[in-house]
Amino acid sequence: MALMDLSRQVALGVDIGGTNTKYGLVNHRGEIVEKGSLKTDQFAEAQDFIDALHDKTAPLLRKYCEQDTFDGIGIGAPNANYYSGTIEQAPNLRWKGVVPFAAMMNEKFGVSCTMTNDANAAALGEMMFGAARGMKNFIMMTLGTGVGSGIITNGQLLYGSDGFAGELGHTIVKPGGRKHWSTGSEGSLEAYASATGIGITAKKMRAEFPNSMLNSYSEERINSKVVFDCAMAGDPTAIEVFRYTGQKLGEALANFVMFSSPEAILLFGGVIKAGDFILKPAKLHMERNLLPIFRNKVKLVFSELDEADAAILGASALVWESHLL
Amino acid sequence: MALMDLSRQVALGVDIGGTNTKYGLVNHRGEIVEKGSLKTDQFAEAQDFIDALHDKTAPLLRKYCEQDTFDGIGIGAPNANYYSGTIEQAPNLRWKGVVPFAAMMNEKFGVSCTMTNDANAAALGEMMFGAARGMKNFIMMTLGTGVGSGIITNGQLLYGSDGFAGELGHTIVKPGGRKHWSTGSEGSLEAYASATGIGITAKKMRAEFPNSMLNSYSEERINSKVVFDCAMAGDPTAIEVFRYTGQKLGEALANFVMFSSPEAILLFGGVIKAGDFILKPAKLHMERNLLPIFRNKVKLVFSELDEADAAILGASALVWESHLL
Repeated sequence: MALMDLSRQVALGVDIGGTNTKYGLVNHRGEIVEKGSLKTDQFAEAQDFIDALHDKTAPLLRKYCEQDTFDGIGIGAPNANYYSGTIEQAPNLRWKGVVPFAAMMNEKFGVSCTMTNDANAAALGEMMFGAARGMKNFIMMTLGTGVGSGIITNGQLLYGSDGFAGELGHTIVKPGGRKHWSTGSEGSLEAYASATGIGITAKKMRAEFPNSMLNSYSEERINSKVVFDCAMAGDPTAIEVFRYTGQKLGEALANFVMFSSPEAILLFGGVIKAGDFILKPAKLHMERNLLPIFRNKVKLVFSELDEADAAILGASALVWESHLL
Repeated sequence: MALMDLSRQVALGVDIGGTNTKYGLVNHRGEIVEKGSLKTDQFAEAQDFIDALHDKTAPLLRKYCEQDTFDGIGIGAPNANYYSGTIEQAPNLRWKGVVPFAAMMNEKFGVSCTMTNDANAAALGEMMFGAARGMKNFIMMTLGTGVGSGIITNGQLLYGSDGFAGELGHTIVKPGGRKHWSTGSEGSLEAYASATGIGITAKKMRAEFPNSMLNSYSEERINSKVVFDCAMAGDPTAIEVFRYTGQKLGEALANFVMFSSPEAILLFGGVIKAGDFILKPAKLHMERNLLPIFRNKVKLVFSELDEADAAILGASALVWESHLL
């Protein structure tokens, strides 16, 4: 095969979420040249979803790609396994059991398809196109409705023995602590540092402080956005909600640092809109729980990728990465 | 250079501890063909130690090695850094500051010298010669006076950005918990699961249970060996000391599994003499804190290497490993 002209290659990046799926054609510079979306939860069967995705993307692929410049498909999806190309028991998808998704995509599209979970894809995207360019050891934490993670060691995604490495949102930060609404575990990072966890913390704390501004909202309106608004308005209880969240996050990060000694931890997702309300206590409690040899070394930074595009870029990066191995 | 005849190669493995240093000539099958020791703490200066080590080993090296079959020196030492070849601020060595140990060894011996910390060396030894043969993803926990760890991912030691990855003994298992006698951190794994930690737990628990057999020993005689003897004699308090230790260990292991998804965790060191008293609760609490996708997958096994030889074998494995890269 002749040396490829990378500048003419595009990859299809697909980010599958529980409700929506976003896709885009991405070039090797990380520019999304075309994009679109479809509803994930509209399809009871994975095959119907794949058929619909093909209908939507086929015209784009024809428009942009000759046979030799369309390079493959990268997919970020919940519980996707890099080794097996399967989606396994994803709690927020309608497709149950073990779905041989990559093989089904390959059958339909006729090109190779690489998958990993959404947080791993985001980490790759950050390494290729974002704040982690040039880094070989970092951890990406996605703080949204849930808490996900992607771990890069020696310049590669850490997959572990079975493809499931990097479930840091489910590590326990407070043994016997808050029960997780879905897994049932007690005291996981996700139970505190996700948007869902912040809502729970806010409801508990406002009950303790009747004067808190948070009490002017009805129960169902309490979420991390409302907590942010109250914190910006100076409400001490709302500020304490974020401080506590940051503490739990920082304690967890210290343990992660002592595991893989990354040069940076990247934070991504809706929760980071709280900015310094969370970042400062997270940094403080990370540093104080570290052995001295690790202190004042690890950068704690926000993602540079646009949130709407990061997952697509990350998914497409799976394709580019395969050229580097 | 002609292809080496590995069967005729030997490497010098050196295990530097705070009190004693052990060394051995090791062949590629992991057989120690000669060994010896010297006192580490007798030497106020690292150079004097290196000179003495050279005096002791030079006759062996002459006896076993022609120029082309002596392959190099591997060293396991506390706080040794693989990247820089330095020993940095090791609390239990007399050589303070940052000692350029590998360069000094190279100068004296005239061969290449590779170093890493003792737990990393043990993990390598286990992968090449012990219970982890054939594994590409596992974690080695050394449970002795302290708690160390070596992490293998993708068939290689995890060093991280600065060479210090894998300080799992210092991860926090109980935020705000027991203060560490040396680091000052609160609730680290080492504070509970080391021999020192077990002694502390035993002293606390025997005070709560006046009828415990542990109360028939004077304060200074309480150690993990005595706890084991009492547990074997059926003392419920002594059994509870190990159960609690195993629980803390198991909780920590669950978090490690969700980080790197290893196929096994190997346990090594004096503490594992407690056998099932610790192993069973460790397994139980590891499993119950894991996400379902990780359950009943990770083997929890004891090391197969002889404790007296493991550190030498591991150190020598640093030399053999360099041929595989």
